Amino acid sequence: MRSIEAVRWGPDGESVRIIDQRRLPHALVERDLRDVPAVVEAIATLAVRGAPAIGVCGAMGLVVALRPHTGASSDQFRDRLQAAAARIRAARPTAVNLAWAIDRMLARAAALDGDPPTMLGALRDEATAILEEDRAMCRRIGEHGLALLPDQARVLTHCNAGALATAGMGTALAPVYLAAEQGRAVRVWATETRPLLQGSRLTAWELQQAGIDVTVITDGTAGSLMRAGRIDLCLVGADRIAANGDVANKIGTYPLAVLARHHGIPFYVAVPSSTLDPETPSGDQIVIEERTPEEVRQVLEQPTAPHDVPVWNPAFDVTPAHLVTAIVTDRGVLWPPYDLARGSISSPPARSSAA
Amino acid sequence: MRSIEAVRWGPDGESVRIIDQRRLPHALVERDLRDVPAVVEAIATLAVRGAPAIGVCGAMGLVVALRPHTGASSDQFRDRLQAAAARIRAARPTAVNLAWAIDRMLARAAALDGDPPTMLGALRDEATAILEEDRAMCRRIGEHGLALLPDQARVLTHCNAGALATAGMGTALAPVYLAAEQGRAVRVWATETRPLLQGSRLTAWELQQAGIDVTVITDGTAGSLMRAGRIDLCLVGADRIAANGDVANKIGTYPLAVLARHHGIPFYVAVPSSTLDPETPSGDQIVIEERTPEEVRQVLEQPTAPHDVPVWNPAFDVTPAHLVTAIVTDRGVLWPPYDLARGSISSPPARSSAA
Repeated sequence: MRSIEAVRWGPDGESVRIIDQRRLPHALVERDLRDVPAVVEAIATLAVRGAPAIGVCGAMGLVVALRPHTGASSDQFRDRLQAAAARIRAARPTAVNLAWAIDRMLARAAALDGDPPTMLGALRDEATAILEEDRAMCRRIGEHGLALLPDQARVLTHCNAGALATAGMGTALAPVYLAAEQGRAVRVWATETRPLLQGSRLTAWELQQAGIDVTVITDGTAGSLMRAGRIDLCLVGADRIAANGDVANKIGTYPLAVLARHHGIPFYVAVPSSTLDPETPSGDQIVIEERTPEEVRQVLEQPTAPHDVPVWNPAFDVTPAHLVTAIVTDRGVLWPPYDLARGSISSPPARSSAA
Repeated sequence: MRSIEAVRWGPDGESVRIIDQRRLPHALVERDLRDVPAVVEAIATLAVRGAPAIGVCGAMGLVVALRPHTGASSDQFRDRLQAAAARIRAARPTAVNLAWAIDRMLARAAALDGDPPTMLGALRDEATAILEEDRAMCRRIGEHGLALLPDQARVLTHCNAGALATAGMGTALAPVYLAAEQGRAVRVWATETRPLLQGSRLTAWELQQAGIDVTVITDGTAGSLMRAGRIDLCLVGADRIAANGDVANKIGTYPLAVLARHHGIPFYVAVPSSTLDPETPSGDQIVIEERTPEEVRQVLEQPTAPHDVPVWNPAFDVTPAHLVTAIVTDRGVLWPPYDLARGSISSPPARSSAA
């Protein structure tokens, strides 16, 4: 199985090597980011995307950007570190993981003595730790989720919560990759995910690269698949999960959860535990970003609607907790009733009630 | 209110004037079809589409194609009629309305005596009758459906079952046009309808032309709208309705029906009574056309997925009768339990049970 690495060290650690996701699925182009402008541009233009992957890329980018400055004084080096950190953090201001990773790098630097080469080495170790922790997080999600997949599982997923969104094997797709790694048959149905087509552009591509059986459908076709008995479970990622278990994820997730309930199909959400937000009581408090009408009035910059027709284009929807069969995290599987404020990980119920 | 006429007579009856739907919504291009090759090309390439509109266009096309031949002998004229009819009928072999309209024209000709100019006049009258009957059918659907629209109705529709699909004011959109005609406030939410985007390209355009409030959403956004209480009813067309009330319509219809039921929203289907198929017992017997993967792997000929990724692309889905609140036809409104073999039109139940 060929594994995708969305973010990794380039040769000799002189660069951050990313897969340029703007070019997918038509071309596999890897880019080596060597300075702050390149890192900022890659994050801002979605060449690298997915909250975990962005955080890893930002931390590693800070290291390669500082490489040319190890001959400076310690004070100069620290000034450059602060300036580079501020610019990278601002590349996508709302990306929580990016700010978290940059802050972690700065905290490590603040705790250090030593000359710039020593500091750079320590920062490189920290960025590598963030990278490795992300990979390990993905694998643990996969391990916990794997137990939920029946033999010859037929999985419906939405958007891209795969390897391309992380430094590892993804979140929602991690159980799928682990099943394939163990030689188990697994089949994925990927919704194309309008408006930005992350399903057909990214999920289909990365599963094909891994040799995993994947079929693309339009978002409106999922109901027919379920009604025909051709789906065993749904497995999606999430952008935020409120304390009561309400799930904010890519627009189109909620209809899949309603359809899954209607057909008695389990609906699982897989996330890093950092996505659990105990401070937000329920989905009602989650503000849904509304994006430009152009994303719907166009596809890949081709107009598909009257140029001035009104559009409603929310980026996410909220799936109420009662439609979520279980939440798979790197720390274990959460079952209802969800009480994420307590972080409880209860025992799974009998499978028959999971539908 | 500016009304769209998808198919009508050109000046002096020398042509069939159509709106070229391949150019919508970017340009309103009308074309005058004057001979058999032009009529066949327009039907085959979907310049004119929608089962009722195709039938009307075929019948009228037969008339204009025969105009240059009124100087021929009666036998020659009848030969040309048969040849033209065969070529037009073959333009879209599976379009039932087209064959029906052509057969009706041939039957009229077979019952005629007289010279070619007299025959041509009679055929023109027959084609005009088909055109007018289609317009009247649309209006009657609108009148029957209008009673189902609350004040300030907020209507969700899918695909295009509007004026562009008929010679008149459409089927599913007819009640909307009538409401607007009467000065009642009405708001339409149009799903874009992947893969071929009839919602964003055609429904949005024709409602805008009529000055009716329309907003486009991706197919995956309908659930959020319903959950937010922003939809009063769903109103869609159909390609075929089985004797038990099961509805075959554009892919993506069934998920909307499931969502509507989940949210307690009425789900109405509006069709010409010719769409009722008492010979087919249930939706299980309806064969669903599967179309080329390219429609999903591309949008407007732009690639959106790996070029060789497997795709499942059914053109239609089946909504079981128990999810259909009522069926609006030109002959009246059908309520459950549906028994279309008997063609019964029962009385509406109390509105509270319609959800």
